[in-house]
Amino acid sequence: MKDFKGIGHYRVGDQVDHYLLIKSSVKGVASNGKPFLTLILQDKSGDIEAKLWDASSDDEESFDAQQIIKVKGDVTNYRGRNQLRIKTIRLATDMDQVKVSDFVESAPLEINEIMEKITQYVFEMRNPNIQRITRHLVKKHQNEFLTFPAATKNHHEFVSGLSYHVVSMLDIAKSLSNLYPSLDTDLLYGGIILHDLGKVVELSGSIAASYTNEGKLLGHISIMVNEIGQAAKELEIDGEEVMLLQHLILSHHGKAEWGSPKPPMIREAEILHMIDNIDAKMNMLDRALDKVEPGEFTDRVFALDNRSFYKPQMETVKKES
Amino acid sequence: MKDFKGIGHYRVGDQVDHYLLIKSSVKGVASNGKPFLTLILQDKSGDIEAKLWDASSDDEESFDAQQIIKVKGDVTNYRGRNQLRIKTIRLATDMDQVKVSDFVESAPLEINEIMEKITQYVFEMRNPNIQRITRHLVKKHQNEFLTFPAATKNHHEFVSGLSYHVVSMLDIAKSLSNLYPSLDTDLLYGGIILHDLGKVVELSGSIAASYTNEGKLLGHISIMVNEIGQAAKELEIDGEEVMLLQHLILSHHGKAEWGSPKPPMIREAEILHMIDNIDAKMNMLDRALDKVEPGEFTDRVFALDNRSFYKPQMETVKKES
Amino acid sequence: MKDFKGIGHYRVGDQVDHYLLIKSSVKGVASNGKPFLTLILQDKSGDIEAKLWDASSDDEESFDAQQIIKVKGDVTNYRGRNQLRIKTIRLATDMDQVKVSDFVESAPLEINEIMEKITQYVFEMRNPNIQRITRHLVKKHQNEFLTFPAATKNHHEFVSGLSYHVVSMLDIAKSLSNLYPSLDTDLLYGGIILHDLGKVVELSGSIAASYTNEGKLLGHISIMVNEIGQAAKELEIDGEEVMLLQHLILSHHGKAEWGSPKPPMIREAEILHMIDNIDAKMNMLDRALDKVEPGEFTDRVFALDNRSFYKPQMETVKKES
Amino acid sequence: MKDFKGIGHYRVGDQVDHYLLIKSSVKGVASNGKPFLTLILQDKSGDIEAKLWDASSDDEESFDAQQIIKVKGDVTNYRGRNQLRIKTIRLATDMDQVKVSDFVESAPLEINEIMEKITQYVFEMRNPNIQRITRHLVKKHQNEFLTFPAATKNHHEFVSGLSYHVVSMLDIAKSLSNLYPSLDTDLLYGGIILHDLGKVVELSGSIAASYTNEGKLLGHISIMVNEIGQAAKELEIDGEEVMLLQHLILSHHGKAEWGSPKPPMIREAEILHMIDNIDAKMNMLDRALDKVEPGEFTDRVFALDNRSFYKPQMETVKKES
Amino acid sequence: MKDFKGIGHYRVGDQVDHYLLIKSSVKGVASNGKPFLTLILQDKSGDIEAKLWDASSDDEESFDAQQIIKVKGDVTNYRGRNQLRIKTIRLATDMDQVKVSDFVESAPLEINEIMEKITQYVFEMRNPNIQRITRHLVKKHQNEFLTFPAATKNHHEFVSGLSYHVVSMLDIAKSLSNLYPSLDTDLLYGGIILHDLGKVVELSGSIAASYTNEGKLLGHISIMVNEIGQAAKELEIDGEEVMLLQHLILSHHGKAEWGSPKPPMIREAEILHMIDNIDAKMNMLDRALDKVEPGEFTDRVFALDNRSFYKPQMETVKKES
Amino acid sequence: MKDFKGIGHYRVGDQVDHYLLIKSSVKGVASNGKPFLTLILQDKSGDIEAKLWDASSDDEESFDAQQIIKVKGDVTNYRGRNQLRIKTIRLATDMDQVKVSDFVESAPLEINEIMEKITQYVFEMRNPNIQRITRHLVKKHQNEFLTFPAATKNHHEFVSGLSYHVVSMLDIAKSLSNLYPSLDTDLLYGGIILHDLGKVVELSGSIAASYTNEGKLLGHISIMVNEIGQAAKELEIDGEEVMLLQHLILSHHGKAEWGSPKPPMIREAEILHMIDNIDAKMNMLDRALDKVEPGEFTDRVFALDNRSFYKPQMETVKKES
Repeated sequence: MKDFKGIGHYRVGDQVDHYLLIKSSVKGVASNGKPFLTLILQDKSGDIEAKLWDASSDDEESFDAQQIIKVKGDVTNYRGRNQLRIKTIRLATDMDQVKVSDFVESAPLEINEIMEKITQYVFEMRNPNIQRITRHLVKKHQNEFLTFPAATKNHHEFVSGLSYHVVSMLDIAKSLSNLYPSLDTDLLYGGIILHDLGKVVELSGSIAASYTNEGKLLGHISIMVNEIGQAAKELEIDGEEVMLLQHLILSHHGKAEWGSPKPPMIREAEILHMIDNIDAKMNMLDRALDKVEPGEFTDRVFALDNRSFYKPQMETVKKES
Repeated sequence: MKDFKGIGHYRVGDQVDHYLLIKSSVKGVASNGKPFLTLILQDKSGDIEAKLWDASSDDEESFDAQQIIKVKGDVTNYRGRNQLRIKTIRLATDMDQVKVSDFVESAPLEINEIMEKITQYVFEMRNPNIQRITRHLVKKHQNEFLTFPAATKNHHEFVSGLSYHVVSMLDIAKSLSNLYPSLDTDLLYGGIILHDLGKVVELSGSIAASYTNEGKLLGHISIMVNEIGQAAKELEIDGEEVMLLQHLILSHHGKAEWGSPKPPMIREAEILHMIDNIDAKMNMLDRALDKVEPGEFTDRVFALDNRSFYKPQMETVKKES
Repeated sequence: MKDFKGIGHYRVGDQVDHYLLIKSSVKGVASNGKPFLTLILQDKSGDIEAKLWDASSDDEESFDAQQIIKVKGDVTNYRGRNQLRIKTIRLATDMDQVKVSDFVESAPLEINEIMEKITQYVFEMRNPNIQRITRHLVKKHQNEFLTFPAATKNHHEFVSGLSYHVVSMLDIAKSLSNLYPSLDTDLLYGGIILHDLGKVVELSGSIAASYTNEGKLLGHISIMVNEIGQAAKELEIDGEEVMLLQHLILSHHGKAEWGSPKPPMIREAEILHMIDNIDAKMNMLDRALDKVEPGEFTDRVFALDNRSFYKPQMETVKKES
Repeated sequence: MKDFKGIGHYRVGDQVDHYLLIKSSVKGVASNGKPFLTLILQDKSGDIEAKLWDASSDDEESFDAQQIIKVKGDVTNYRGRNQLRIKTIRLATDMDQVKVSDFVESAPLEINEIMEKITQYVFEMRNPNIQRITRHLVKKHQNEFLTFPAATKNHHEFVSGLSYHVVSMLDIAKSLSNLYPSLDTDLLYGGIILHDLGKVVELSGSIAASYTNEGKLLGHISIMVNEIGQAAKELEIDGEEVMLLQHLILSHHGKAEWGSPKPPMIREAEILHMIDNIDAKMNMLDRALDKVEPGEFTDRVFALDNRSFYKPQMETVKKES
Repeated sequence: MKDFKGIGHYRVGDQVDHYLLIKSSVKGVASNGKPFLTLILQDKSGDIEAKLWDASSDDEESFDAQQIIKVKGDVTNYRGRNQLRIKTIRLATDMDQVKVSDFVESAPLEINEIMEKITQYVFEMRNPNIQRITRHLVKKHQNEFLTFPAATKNHHEFVSGLSYHVVSMLDIAKSLSNLYPSLDTDLLYGGIILHDLGKVVELSGSIAASYTNEGKLLGHISIMVNEIGQAAKELEIDGEEVMLLQHLILSHHGKAEWGSPKPPMIREAEILHMIDNIDAKMNMLDRALDKVEPGEFTDRVFALDNRSFYKPQMETVKKES
Repeated sequence: MKDFKGIGHYRVGDQVDHYLLIKSSVKGVASNGKPFLTLILQDKSGDIEAKLWDASSDDEESFDAQQIIKVKGDVTNYRGRNQLRIKTIRLATDMDQVKVSDFVESAPLEINEIMEKITQYVFEMRNPNIQRITRHLVKKHQNEFLTFPAATKNHHEFVSGLSYHVVSMLDIAKSLSNLYPSLDTDLLYGGIILHDLGKVVELSGSIAASYTNEGKLLGHISIMVNEIGQAAKELEIDGEEVMLLQHLILSHHGKAEWGSPKPPMIREAEILHMIDNIDAKMNMLDRALDKVEPGEFTDRVFALDNRSFYKPQMETVKKES
């Protein structure tokens, strides 16, 4: 058996003998009339569908979402996608010494590192209005901000994805500000930190997140625009900065048809939208290309206009640093 | 000289000898190097462009926007549009006994009648949360609500246009609710009354309105969603109604590409959008058709997909009531 | 077993023991090589897919479309949709005292009530040309008009849906005409009554309707425009009304890309299109929302831009009448 | 003075001394307060705008549309377009021996040649139903068919343009039928002959045509679909051919958004649409390229997606025939 | 058993007992845990899916792509598409005297006939630059040009489809040039011959072609534009013809959104695009209509805007030649 | 007279008394029949239209494009745009000691600085194939590369705009590569340097550039893809790098509808497109915002989706460095 790089890297014909986390479990009835379970099993590298045929009622109860199991089986192909044919399966016990966080992808930075970086950016702000509003809202939602994903799918859909995405964007913003000194960094940093913070209300949690009713009916943009208004009121801040921060949130999707009621109308709003794009796309590209060999094309990536991408064969010569 | 139906109904060759309001006045320099004024002159029926050639500096000062003048001249055609060739022009004086409101179109209902109707609709609400929020916000912005236009152009762009449009929509909502009893009238009436109320911040005033900076950067939708949130906070209201009213405002343009960050997702939001459309379109149609004779087509109406409309020749037989 | 609200309201795990109508029956071959039947079973509340495994040739013959059967089984989930796992199934007999119309949805009004209402609207017309053409065409297609659905899916897809939709639209038109007295009610009522009448040629029948060849190649719009032309010729009517009625039919889909060769160019055409929309959408919304509990979202409704809709939890306080 | 190739070929600086036809005459008032006339003057090669300054009332009366005048002047440039500066102008008299048809472009074939070719195509039809309907409708509208333009602008907008366009299309259809023997030539020829025949009702006449009310409200497609229906009724023809011919007319614009309520659904409808396109585009291209020298680009042609076209410099070597 | 018209014409219930070619073979695992093969079996008339249940490892090895097999079974319906239920299957042997080319569709003309026709068109060119470049590139890629398909699907996706498509287009071009003498036939013929020649690099081979990496990353348009540039360099040709030929290749998809970086800007480019369209569409239409009976509609054809087409019932009366 | 900030900053009413460069000069004829000149006068800050009335033939000859003049006059408003009313005008002489380059905007970096930076980036490449192709093509077009603008309008439309834009993009690429180490900098830098180099053929020169015929018919993308192919051939380079560089050029407009025949399909192509966007947009934003005061909106910027942008009033607090 090959070295275990994670279930996301398995290919048809590989043998599986690992601990995996049950992401979801749905009951079905087979064509022979017997019940079966469709399990989605995951580790940090990805997930795979598995069928447990002739499932007893005990099985149904045991093999539920969020449980860790030990499973043996083969990877097969079903309608062009990998599927795990289960040979044996059992629940993990305390003896196995595995825990949920071992199977859930999370940001490459630790939470306290993320928080430290954001705190530093806030600390460097010179404009007191922007600084106070930003600090107030980060503090208010700090726990969720540091653990929520940035989305339910597509990009940064992992634990702490939201705040990690913010940190990456801040770093890009900093380097672009050096090249374009006309940018107001206070406004830009403030906008970046707050731009997706409404997702802590829009989404249901840090793992296997779905949309809340409020998320569906109002959306994270309107939610955060409101929060900025209320923060300003509570902090008794009244300057143009409130309106500008709200505009940055409102316009960060770039166009009406992408969900922004106003397009960017100030320099920092335009650049924020582009930075958001760059970081989201680089994240998606890296993850898609990570799964293929040089000379191959990736699967189509829906959020990148359904394109598939080529991984060059020529060797990248890295500079010594 | 024909009976004065208003400047909007004049045709090429007609003689003008009337009081008119100067809507705008812009200085230019003619091809002979002499200054001239381009005046837009209006009364309740419409407006006309006029050129005042060889304008002295006195003229420039006198014939400014918001002044009433007495003018004689001929209606001519310039590049397909009516233009008034001025023969004589003078400022109106107190002796002339004319006032600005004589020349400005306003809603067919008096302000107190409008207020009375809206009050009645609010009064009939059974849901206390919706009733209190609606009443609070109407009261907060009452003066502007009752005098502002509904838009700077296209439809209901006259004094009290905003509140008059709301009253018409409420009447349609009432009759549709009788036909579709599944509608929640409290929610629907509340949504209608508040849907465009953000325009009192988005626009600059009741006459010759333009967009404020806040209007341009945030828009009346986000402004009002915020106000509802703040009203709920002040009134200590916490139910689902707050979110539903906010959703009605957010979605009343119907689609992302028309400026709504969320499409309608509840029954009342969908119907509110359609009622808004009906009243705006009927207003535009009536005004366009009012200017042509039976058997003719109107000018193209930009906000109606740039269509022109036909006025039938067959006689409409009205029922005796 | 819970009180039988109809198959459309069943959920996974429910037991079924009812009479149902076979909507369609298609033969397949299972992965074990044995034939099976895929049945769509319906009652007035909706339908459900069922698999009959190991079907004999007798079964194939017996369990054909339009037959009523008595079935026992469980509701299971297959790929996200309900499926009935059949335990026992038999054809209904005369003894069971059930008939096809018990299982087919139809309009909430009786046919004679519908006819009476339409007759009344025609009777009130003052313009003899419009009245005669309308009466002539209603009479010519009366049977089909009163029993056909308004569409094969999406909205009013039930027995008498076509004429019931017309009656609802007439009622809306009447109330809007009171609010907008500039509308010519004769033209508007005539247009409403005739607007979809071409569907009696476009569709194949009143139950399980499909498109005829003529329907596919010409469409109900062109079919009815022709019929109006021919009616006018037979009745020796020659006024502008013929062209206007034809225009109302031609333009009632609103835009070229929605199948109207001409957009609405008269006031009544514009309002007819909007009324058509309101009634179709309210019908779809009510049916979708009827299937979910307060606090839930409906399935996506394809014909409503694929949106799903939320059913509020707050209680609607109905006025006493 | 250069050899007179026609006003459409003149360039800035050229001297004009010719007979021209007044296409339209519109009165204006100059910035010095004096009346002037804006004349559009044409010959077969194109047209030019001219200003007649200080026009007397006599001038206004004399220099009206459809009059032939003798004019001297210079071609100048005004806002990027040619304009004729008039030095002298007078009405042509009988002595001048010029007539309107000298100045109006017409098809390269004589009317009787066109009619002969169409008659031959009809004669060769084998299907009696298609032949009789086609012949009936050609005969009914023969005069207008042979003199009307194919459009008010864009392509074949000259006397007999409609029937000349049909003849060109028939010739293409014939050669394509030899290459694709699966095509039914009777249906295709019938469809081509009738496809735009509704324009004899849609347009106002053979010279300076505009749209009639019926043309605007119904369109030539619906008009002709009706006429085919009525012809079939009068001739007591009942076969599938009636529906197929109507479908060819309905679908000949190719897509809903181009005004066809149904897209082509039979082979001959698809090819008819493409032949129509080819002939219209070749006509527009030839006319645009005819006005420029090798190595130049034409003006943008609106109906060809606003493209401009290059005229190659390399010599075309023509084969000896 | 009915006369064998080919697998593409079979209907549910038909018995199969024939030689067929395995187009592709994919292994799966059934719900009972046993492996099976999904085979696509083809002959010249089309293809059909087949399942081989309980496949042994021997089966997997034997029944691979490009093998010819003898199979018996029934045509059944699975999710609306035909599927072959295999009763017996074996590999064909030499004794069976069948060869791959018996099962692969190819152009209706022999390769040498195609080459002869193209050679004749090249021979007739008068412009030496165009002639030399065209001849050079045809010669360079002759083998692939004569055997490759024109596409991997949609139209002319058969052996020699590429060159056969070119011959058809040349014939259309010739007949159109007679009707529109302004066309430069040398340029047009050269453009047609080269327009898709880049596909010999874009695609992988003549049978079961897929896209090469170069094909995906550069596309046949850029590949051929480069080749023309290089050919001109090698042949030391320097005239405008090089640029014009390159423009014809660049623009032959007609619009940017269809993959042409430049739209057609010379007459011959515009007509080339239209001829390409006609031949591709006629090919798709004939193939789709060939599979249905008169009075029926075809399946939806994706590349024809997803339309389905009607096959008329009326008899086509063919002229005696 | 206020301090001369350049003609682009003048407002209505300002007095002008300066040297300016004639950008273009077009002759017209005034309504009084006398000739006049329309001059576009420019300096580094922008340009202004001026009318020279009653122009003699001497004037026409003297005041031609590329001449420097001394002019006195007033800034007036004509149809919403600034216009200069000329009082006196004369040609500059040697005595005036002014030269063309004083009036033409150019990049903020000197040519030798630009060249040095690009040379450094090429020098640092590790991949010899990419390095050699890049160096070869930069050398081949060095003069034009260093002086041409990046476009004829919209962004970087000044002397050396093309190479300056490249340098800015390289700097962004460098900082992003630090944040995203998966990027291949050799490929990315090579692609950036070459991406717009085809403009040296597409455009006519470094000042007042227009499109060449080759530019219009082939475009800078196809031109450069060809040049890379030829460079590789000359340098006898054969690796995957050639295809990858060509793909980067082909795809740098991002989408087919924006002129890229292939969308980005490798990581570096995607990021190159985004970097191009950022630099172009920042350039346009800075120039538009530079012309307005805090609290104002800019004119609409066509290439930025026709948006206008707001310049905040709040003070930007710059960090001490």
